Amino acid sequence: MNFASDNWAGVHPAISKNLLDISSGFCTPYGASDFDKNVEQRFNELFEREVAVYFVSTGTAANSLALASVNRPGGVSFCHREAHMLEDECGAPEFFTHGARLAPVDGNNGKIDPHHLKTEIARFPPNFVHAGQPMAISITQATEIGTLYKIDEIEEIANIAKYYELPLHMDGARFANALVTLNLTPAEMTWKRGVDIVSFGATKNGCWCAEALVFMNPEMGKDLPYIRKRAAQLLSKSRFVAAQFDAYFKDDLWLQMAKHANAMAEHLQLGIVNSKIARLAWKAEANEVFAILNKAYIDKLQKQGAVFYQWNTPRDKVGIVNENEVLIRLVTSFATERTEVERFLALLD
Amino acid sequence: MNFASDNWAGVHPAISKNLLDISSGFCTPYGASDFDKNVEQRFNELFEREVAVYFVSTGTAANSLALASVNRPGGVSFCHREAHMLEDECGAPEFFTHGARLAPVDGNNGKIDPHHLKTEIARFPPNFVHAGQPMAISITQATEIGTLYKIDEIEEIANIAKYYELPLHMDGARFANALVTLNLTPAEMTWKRGVDIVSFGATKNGCWCAEALVFMNPEMGKDLPYIRKRAAQLLSKSRFVAAQFDAYFKDDLWLQMAKHANAMAEHLQLGIVNSKIARLAWKAEANEVFAILNKAYIDKLQKQGAVFYQWNTPRDKVGIVNENEVLIRLVTSFATERTEVERFLALLD
Amino acid sequence: MNFASDNWAGVHPAISKNLLDISSGFCTPYGASDFDKNVEQRFNELFEREVAVYFVSTGTAANSLALASVNRPGGVSFCHREAHMLEDECGAPEFFTHGARLAPVDGNNGKIDPHHLKTEIARFPPNFVHAGQPMAISITQATEIGTLYKIDEIEEIANIAKYYELPLHMDGARFANALVTLNLTPAEMTWKRGVDIVSFGATKNGCWCAEALVFMNPEMGKDLPYIRKRAAQLLSKSRFVAAQFDAYFKDDLWLQMAKHANAMAEHLQLGIVNSKIARLAWKAEANEVFAILNKAYIDKLQKQGAVFYQWNTPRDKVGIVNENEVLIRLVTSFATERTEVERFLALLD
Amino acid sequence: MNFASDNWAGVHPAISKNLLDISSGFCTPYGASDFDKNVEQRFNELFEREVAVYFVSTGTAANSLALASVNRPGGVSFCHREAHMLEDECGAPEFFTHGARLAPVDGNNGKIDPHHLKTEIARFPPNFVHAGQPMAISITQATEIGTLYKIDEIEEIANIAKYYELPLHMDGARFANALVTLNLTPAEMTWKRGVDIVSFGATKNGCWCAEALVFMNPEMGKDLPYIRKRAAQLLSKSRFVAAQFDAYFKDDLWLQMAKHANAMAEHLQLGIVNSKIARLAWKAEANEVFAILNKAYIDKLQKQGAVFYQWNTPRDKVGIVNENEVLIRLVTSFATERTEVERFLALLD
Repeated sequence: MNFASDNWAGVHPAISKNLLDISSGFCTPYGASDFDKNVEQRFNELFEREVAVYFVSTGTAANSLALASVNRPGGVSFCHREAHMLEDECGAPEFFTHGARLAPVDGNNGKIDPHHLKTEIARFPPNFVHAGQPMAISITQATEIGTLYKIDEIEEIANIAKYYELPLHMDGARFANALVTLNLTPAEMTWKRGVDIVSFGATKNGCWCAEALVFMNPEMGKDLPYIRKRAAQLLSKSRFVAAQFDAYFKDDLWLQMAKHANAMAEHLQLGIVNSKIARLAWKAEANEVFAILNKAYIDKLQKQGAVFYQWNTPRDKVGIVNENEVLIRLVTSFATERTEVERFLALLD
Repeated sequence: MNFASDNWAGVHPAISKNLLDISSGFCTPYGASDFDKNVEQRFNELFEREVAVYFVSTGTAANSLALASVNRPGGVSFCHREAHMLEDECGAPEFFTHGARLAPVDGNNGKIDPHHLKTEIARFPPNFVHAGQPMAISITQATEIGTLYKIDEIEEIANIAKYYELPLHMDGARFANALVTLNLTPAEMTWKRGVDIVSFGATKNGCWCAEALVFMNPEMGKDLPYIRKRAAQLLSKSRFVAAQFDAYFKDDLWLQMAKHANAMAEHLQLGIVNSKIARLAWKAEANEVFAILNKAYIDKLQKQGAVFYQWNTPRDKVGIVNENEVLIRLVTSFATERTEVERFLALLD
Repeated sequence: MNFASDNWAGVHPAISKNLLDISSGFCTPYGASDFDKNVEQRFNELFEREVAVYFVSTGTAANSLALASVNRPGGVSFCHREAHMLEDECGAPEFFTHGARLAPVDGNNGKIDPHHLKTEIARFPPNFVHAGQPMAISITQATEIGTLYKIDEIEEIANIAKYYELPLHMDGARFANALVTLNLTPAEMTWKRGVDIVSFGATKNGCWCAEALVFMNPEMGKDLPYIRKRAAQLLSKSRFVAAQFDAYFKDDLWLQMAKHANAMAEHLQLGIVNSKIARLAWKAEANEVFAILNKAYIDKLQKQGAVFYQWNTPRDKVGIVNENEVLIRLVTSFATERTEVERFLALLD
Repeated sequence: MNFASDNWAGVHPAISKNLLDISSGFCTPYGASDFDKNVEQRFNELFEREVAVYFVSTGTAANSLALASVNRPGGVSFCHREAHMLEDECGAPEFFTHGARLAPVDGNNGKIDPHHLKTEIARFPPNFVHAGQPMAISITQATEIGTLYKIDEIEEIANIAKYYELPLHMDGARFANALVTLNLTPAEMTWKRGVDIVSFGATKNGCWCAEALVFMNPEMGKDLPYIRKRAAQLLSKSRFVAAQFDAYFKDDLWLQMAKHANAMAEHLQLGIVNSKIARLAWKAEANEVFAILNKAYIDKLQKQGAVFYQWNTPRDKVGIVNENEVLIRLVTSFATERTEVERFLALLD
């Protein structure tokens, strides 16, 4: 009953097997091999346009280098107050941009509120050097709290980005989970709505170390080869990242894994709605379910073998938890078994 | 006949298999699992003391974070003029230290000359802020040109480091290859001689992405957890790096692979000594052989399927190559087959 | 009727004259002259202990280098949400610390609320690398909105700093104005309360370019000579900064100027309290008075020659201004003439 | 007999007086006043085109921000091996560019050799990310050893810059001294030859803190307002820098001061040529004279009151000094009196 995080899961066997299969033989390093290039080509097909793809080793690297690629002196990037890049990356985005700031934007359900976004951007009027200057907007899809931006919501933020001539980045650590719920193609969820750069995560969804920074317009990422190498993110045996993506995309494995994860979350969600001792904190839309229950049950659940994290209540939800209660997060993945979900739900009855 | 580089080789099957074996199941991420801890424990045994071990994804990251961990404002690190960190890391060491400088030191055979080292350090007298201040010394073992520091040579440099109170770093991208030639233990080649920090590379020697930054004195690396995370080098599914090291160390696989690579280099070397059309540039001591031959042969060799790089002549060797000649580098690895070496040598006859 | 800012004022004639008087003759540059050293000695006397003093050219430099001197990877410094370093320095503190973050802390009257401070610090638990680590606390005295920390309020924050082993910095851009209102000595307002580092500003109080970074414990600033030089803040003809401080301290000129500025602010304040068309926004405690008046008057006042800024209402004061009103800031300085204050007050009647 | 450096001199009385004259009154800060704008206009006239001018507080700031304004990831700037930015700025250029490297280029007489320059640039072939990428070329006029680039020498380097599409920076800490020897206009010595950015120094030539970063093409410096503010180099009472330049340019005071300094150097030079105990190291072309004499005389000269520095022999001049001799540097300035030169020369007889 492990619902701690999707990065506690292992690797899908088809991906491990692909790694094994390409183990022997010699191959041009640093991403220059035909094998790497072929996998990059798969991204073009998925995104229905010629994109620029850069493999990196962590999601934090993808997010940080995305911002570094559009860096400005005194730059300020706008993201949700509870965004991963703001809360969980130890200042890496600031480090890789030499101090460009992340400005938190409020918004319900883990999503940037367009009105607040405009208010925040307006605090940095053109040519007022003391405040710094707007640099980028970043949204997370799926969000940190398992919700999703609908495509018109993405579009609304993209319009603000366009108005202020700011690039729009999408942190897609759980890109696939969002995609399958919304039943969209990658193109529809990104550049067709105005997204410029995607941190395309695969690690959480069944790979072990496969993250790609994808520029919808390759020109925007033209410095990335140098930025990536200088950031110590150019892997020599890069083909082993490529091999993960190769198996990931084959026969839509990635979508199947995400669908499974989401289905398990949905199953959990329904069980919690019907639970006597827990209630749903808010509607889960991807592979993270947040539930509220009395503190007293935490220990009991853990003793029975359930693994999960307690969570700080998001600021817009303060009040939904009373003093005897706690908020817990339950994350599912490709590896979550239905029987484990059911065992867990039985404990909540 | 691929002698391009040891990072063109694939992965040893035992390592790939270990990755496959640990694919399933749930595991604490970010290096906090028992499995990770057990592998770290192996480093303690190897180094015969309690060391601090940090996995990172590239050798450039290991080198850069080593310097970042001993960073000083206006800092200057001393390395050989042809060191990898100076020539081949796109300024990553400077980037991760916010501009601390790498000062090139001359020396024959790819090794820092202690006399020159002292002269260079003396250019930064204490409290003369205009010049900056000495920060670290870095040696590469094996060197970029396939030679080795003997232990008394390491000790001589370590004594200079001690005199100036500077930490001594060893770039061990080819640590194992050095170790087996010198027939030393890791402890004997490092801290017993005065080395403080090691970039312990395994990627070139049969892993696919396994680098460790090792502090002989854990206190010296006490900020590394934050430095590494901020550098986007904390892998979530860290156990897959641990699994590589696990198989790497098991039954001395790492030493066997290095011995094989070195033996193949020795075989190449002997063949070149006896060749009619090529001659040895200098004595190979690890897994890199440098040969000189007439330009005219390059094309011919490549057409026969030989893969290798031409090399800029090191500054202390300018003159060994005449105008019709070129210097080539031949790198062997765990994956180099004896028959391929012999096919190649046959072409040189 | 210029109340725009104290940096719109010129230079006190005694200071200008001192600059002229030392114009000729040769002098060791870079702060190493006896003249510089003597002025540094004056700081020791003022602070009643041996402090380390570093002249820099701007208040932003003083604040940024203060944080740089206590820098930590993934570091987070806590300051009031409306602090100058957060709102008006274009990301310089982040830049000079390579991306260490400034965390805004709420609090009424421009002052950090100790309760909120503890809550914010607690968001960065020890060894949780994802969040980063606490690095420093910074208070501003006088605050951005012209209020003052009482000594017990400083002490309360200092106790929190001590508990978390964080250095406490004071942005003293208007140090003198605070000092004379509180009727304290520099020692009493700083290290005797637990302040570790002071940005000691003199530019706003009658100098033209005289800022000092003062470490109560010289050891804490031991890297500052290199940090300052690397930051391009080591002035060659440093004695001209020293000369400003020399005249500034002579016969307590600095305290007289601050007293005059504060008295003019008090005069303004009383006039506003009695005004028919304006009202006081909150109590002024140093040399900045904030008033609220109907928008319609702004234009009228400016046409009569009054110079001042409209101000964004501080977050804790939102609501004091209704939709037809604006908040204005009136700053006085050593150069503010009583007749000008009275002319302005007459317009408010 | 002070020949230590031109930054040991004080300030020309006309400049000090101008500072005094503008001491009173209120003025828009941060360089936005009409007075500042008028002084900027003077630069347009001097350079015979519309340039962009940014005042900063030190020459190190001017050089560092020049490079920051053309920064590239993995960037490498080429300057002479003995350039001030490489030898005497404590890594500030690297710091402000987040680690972009300075590559030393050899050349006789303190000047970059175009042939060596091309060789060095060629070490960074396009798209070879491991080495980094060329970013800028910087020349120093007058050089660190008191020599000058002739205009065709500047042009030759500018042509290389153009070929590689690199901006050409001129460190003009002693711009005026070069100008008056060559008898050129600022335009002729800079953009008409292909120089893009000038660190226009006035501090050494009779001001006390007046440096300007000048972009021949304002577009190239378009980010400078943010870069400068973020670098803590935007002075609030900026008009006091403007006032120095105002007096500096008035009635060609700057050229007169430089001519005087150069004439004093010429006088020294002639005396040394005729001296019995000293000889000229190389021909002085601006305000720095380098002489060689027996070690034994150093003490004697200093006891008589002469102040000067011993100098490391430039690498291309090693051999001109034998083991009993030392190289000394004698710098003149606007403040050097002929009688002092003559007293000194008398000691050399």
